[in-house]
Amino acid sequence: MLREWVDRTAREYPARLAMTVFAAVITLFTLLLLPPWATATDTGARFVDALFTATSAVCITGLVVVDTAEYWSEYGRAVILLGIKVGGLGVMTIASLLGIAVSRRIGLTQKLLTASETKTGTTRLGEVGSLIRLIIVVSTSIELTIALILLPRFLALDESLGLALWHSTFYGISAFNNAGFVPTVDGLLPYASDWLVIIPVVLGVFIGALGFPVMLNLLQARRHGRRFLRHLSLHTKLTITTSVALLVAGLVIIGAMEWANPETLGGQDLSTKFLSALMASVMPRSGGFNTFDVGAMRAESWLVTDALMFVGGGSASTAGGIKVTTLAVMLLAIVAEARGDRDVDVFGRRIPRDTLRLSIAVVFIGATMVLVSCIALVRITDFSLSQILFEVISAFATVGLSTGITGDLPDGGKYWLSALMYLGRVGTISVLGALALRDRRRVIRFPEERPIIG
Amino acid sequence: MLREWVDRTAREYPARLAMTVFAAVITLFTLLLLPPWATATDTGARFVDALFTATSAVCITGLVVVDTAEYWSEYGRAVILLGIKVGGLGVMTIASLLGIAVSRRIGLTQKLLTASETKTGTTRLGEVGSLIRLIIVVSTSIELTIALILLPRFLALDESLGLALWHSTFYGISAFNNAGFVPTVDGLLPYASDWLVIIPVVLGVFIGALGFPVMLNLLQARRHGRRFLRHLSLHTKLTITTSVALLVAGLVIIGAMEWANPETLGGQDLSTKFLSALMASVMPRSGGFNTFDVGAMRAESWLVTDALMFVGGGSASTAGGIKVTTLAVMLLAIVAEARGDRDVDVFGRRIPRDTLRLSIAVVFIGATMVLVSCIALVRITDFSLSQILFEVISAFATVGLSTGITGDLPDGGKYWLSALMYLGRVGTISVLGALALRDRRRVIRFPEERPIIG
Ligand SMILES: [K+]
Ligand SMILES: [K+]
Repeated sequence: MLREWVDRTAREYPARLAMTVFAAVITLFTLLLLPPWATATDTGARFVDALFTATSAVCITGLVVVDTAEYWSEYGRAVILLGIKVGGLGVMTIASLLGIAVSRRIGLTQKLLTASETKTGTTRLGEVGSLIRLIIVVSTSIELTIALILLPRFLALDESLGLALWHSTFYGISAFNNAGFVPTVDGLLPYASDWLVIIPVVLGVFIGALGFPVMLNLLQARRHGRRFLRHLSLHTKLTITTSVALLVAGLVIIGAMEWANPETLGGQDLSTKFLSALMASVMPRSGGFNTFDVGAMRAESWLVTDALMFVGGGSASTAGGIKVTTLAVMLLAIVAEARGDRDVDVFGRRIPRDTLRLSIAVVFIGATMVLVSCIALVRITDFSLSQILFEVISAFATVGLSTGITGDLPDGGKYWLSALMYLGRVGTISVLGALALRDRRRVIRFPEERPIIG
Repeated sequence: MLREWVDRTAREYPARLAMTVFAAVITLFTLLLLPPWATATDTGARFVDALFTATSAVCITGLVVVDTAEYWSEYGRAVILLGIKVGGLGVMTIASLLGIAVSRRIGLTQKLLTASETKTGTTRLGEVGSLIRLIIVVSTSIELTIALILLPRFLALDESLGLALWHSTFYGISAFNNAGFVPTVDGLLPYASDWLVIIPVVLGVFIGALGFPVMLNLLQARRHGRRFLRHLSLHTKLTITTSVALLVAGLVIIGAMEWANPETLGGQDLSTKFLSALMASVMPRSGGFNTFDVGAMRAESWLVTDALMFVGGGSASTAGGIKVTTLAVMLLAIVAEARGDRDVDVFGRRIPRDTLRLSIAVVFIGATMVLVSCIALVRITDFSLSQILFEVISAFATVGLSTGITGDLPDGGKYWLSALMYLGRVGTISVLGALALRDRRRVIRFPEERPIIG
C-alpha cells in the first residue's frame, strides 16, 4: 500500500512526495528529540530547539542552536546521527526517483543513469526498491570506508576503542552526507594540522557532494577499463569539472584573503595553511565542517564563501545549493550567447534548451528565498547584513557553516531558518519535479514577438 | 567620414561602438571639469573627483563625491547638465541603433519600433540621422513640458524668474534623463510635501525610464484612436505592466517598512507619507532623487531598494539596471516551467527562446559585477555590507541614491565606482550587441544530452 502510494506519487506529483516525506520525517525526529532524556541535563529541550535540530539533521545542514556534544544526551546524539543518515538517503533517493520520472516523461533517448541501472521489464515497484537498495549499499560502503580510515588515527591519538569507533563512525556518516555535525565540543578544530583526519573528511564531503548519479556512473564506467572516459555521461563530466574548478578557485581566493589574518590562517605554518584553505574551499559546498573560527574570517571572505555556498554541490547529492550543473549550464549559455552560437555545446554534446529554463527557475527561486529571508532577519534582529546573509545562505544551501549568530537568534529567527532549511532542501528537488510533469503541451502556438532585453 | 565609421561600427561591432563613444564622452567631460574655473573656489577639482562627476553625469547616475551646488561653479554645473543631456541622448540613441541592428540581423518579421519609423529604401546613414533627430525632438519636448509645469510653482515659491527658469530646466532635464543631479544643496528635500513639484518630477522620471521604443510606440498607437491597444507592441505592454507592478509593490512595501521610522516617514502627515513612499518606489528605478535622508532608512528598506535598483527601468531608456523586460521574461519563463508549458506565452504572443539566454547573460553579468564590487569595497573600506551593497547597486544601475558614503570613499573606491557606473551603463547595451552578431551558425549539431539541474 505505502509503496504503491509512493510509486504513484513519485510518478504523478513528485514535488509533493518530496515535501511530504521531508515534513513527516522532520516531525518524527522533532518528537524523538523532545523527551527529557534527549538532553544531557534531563530537563528536555525547548520545542523550537528540538525542531531546529531535527530539521538541521534531516536536511543534513549542520547549523546548531545548541552545542551538539554538550546539550544533547547520548540518546539525543544517536537520534541526530540517525536523522542525518535518513535525511541523506532520502535526498539521494527522492532526487534520483525524480530523475527517473523526468527521463520517462519527456522521452529521452539516453535515460538518466539511475534508470539505466534497473532492468527493463521490471515493475516500477521493483525499480524503486532496487534503487533504494543500491543507494543504501553505495552510501554505507563509502561511510564505512571513511570511518575505517579515520579509526586508526583516532586510536593513535589516544582515544579509547569505543570512543574512537563512535567518533570515526560519526565523522564517516556526517562527512559523506555533508551534514557538518560534530560529536565533540571542539569538532575538527584540534585536527586543523592533521592530514590523516582532514583529508579523509574532505574526500568524504567531496564524494558525497558529487551526487548519486555521478557515483553510479563512475562505478559503471570503471568496468570498461581503458574506455572509461567514453562511458562518462555529460552530467558526470559537468559535475566533476565544475566541482574541481570551484575547489581550486575557492582555495586560491579565500587562501589569499585570509593569508595574513592572525585569527585564521595568519599564525599557521604552510602545511596547515593549505589544509585550512582547502577546508574553506570545500566545506561551503556544502560539508559545513570548519577547522578555524568562521566568525573571525574577513567580511570579504564571507562574501566569497556566500557565493560558493549558494552554488552548492551536485544534483541528487547530499549537498545543497542551486547545484554545480545549474551554474555550468548558465555559464555555458552565456559563452554561447557572447559567441553568437545557436546551440549550447560542451564535451561534444548539445544541452537541451529547456534545461536553461529550469536553471533560471532554480536560481531565481533560490535567490528570492535568500533575499526575502535577509529582509526578514535584518528586520527582526540587530545583526549585520554580512552575518545574516552568511547564515541565510548557509541554511538555504544546507551548509551549516556559521558566523556564530544562529544560537543567539530570537525564536522567530530560529523558526524562519528552520523553514528555510526545509525549503532549500526540498525546493530545488521540487522544481526538478515540475519538469517531470511537463506534459500539458499546447496545440495552438501563439505568433512569436521579441521584447528588448537588457 | 565619422558618420560612415559610426554606421559601420554600429552594424559590425555594436558593443564596441557603445564602449568607445561613452569612454570618449566621459574623457571629454572630465577635461571640461578640470580647469580651476569649474569649481566655486577657483582651486580646480582633483582628477578623481572630476572623473567621478563626469562619469556620473554622462552615465546619468547622479552619485556625487562633492556637493553639486556648493563645489562646482556655474560653469561646472552647466557642464554637468550638458553631460546629462548628451549622456541621455547617447544611451537612447545607441540602444535604439542596436535594436535596429538586432532586428536586421536575425530577420524578425516584426521589426523593432525604431526601425519601422524610418522609411524603407533610405540609406542606413539616413536612418541613423533621422533616429537621432527623432530622439532629440521627443526627449527635448518632454523635458520642456516638465520644466514648464515646474516653472510657475518655483515662481510661486518666491524664486526670481532667472533662478526659477534655471531650476525648472535643470529638473526637467535631470528628471527625464533619470539623472538624479540636483541644482541646490538641499535638492528636493524642501518639497517633500509639495505635490506640484514632486508629481511632475516623478512623471518625468517614470516616462524617461520607459525607454524610447515604448514612447515611440505609444505615440504611433495614439494615432489609431480606438484601436490604440491593438497597436501596442509586446515590448510596450511588458514594460508598462512590469513598471507599474514594481511601482505599486515598492510603494506598499517600503511605505509599510518606513511608516513608523521617525527619521523618514514617521513624523510626516498622510499626504506627505504617500509622496515619500511614491518617491522611495519610483526613484530606485533609476531616477535617484530623494525627499528624505536615504541614509536614515531601515536596513531592510535598503534591501528592498537594492532589489528595485538592480531591476532598473525599460530597455533603451535613460534608466539603468537589468531592465524590466529582462525580469518579466525570466518570471514568465518560471511560470511556464512550473505549469509545464512548452512555450513562454504572454499577451497572446510567444516569447522567442533565445530571449531567455540573453536575459540570463544580462542578469548573471550584472550580479557578478555587483558581487565582485562588494568584495572589493568591503576589503578596501570599513563601511558595512548594507551600505556598500546599496552604493554598488546604485552605481551599477546608474541610480544615484546614496546612504551617504560615496564622498567618504578612498580614491580607489571612487575609481572603482566610476568604472562600475561606466560598465553598468554600457554593459547591458553591449550584451544586447552580442545578439546582433549572432550569425556564426554551426552547420554540424552535436547530439543532445541532458544534465540534471537543481
Ligand atoms: K551541511
Ligand atoms: K540616475
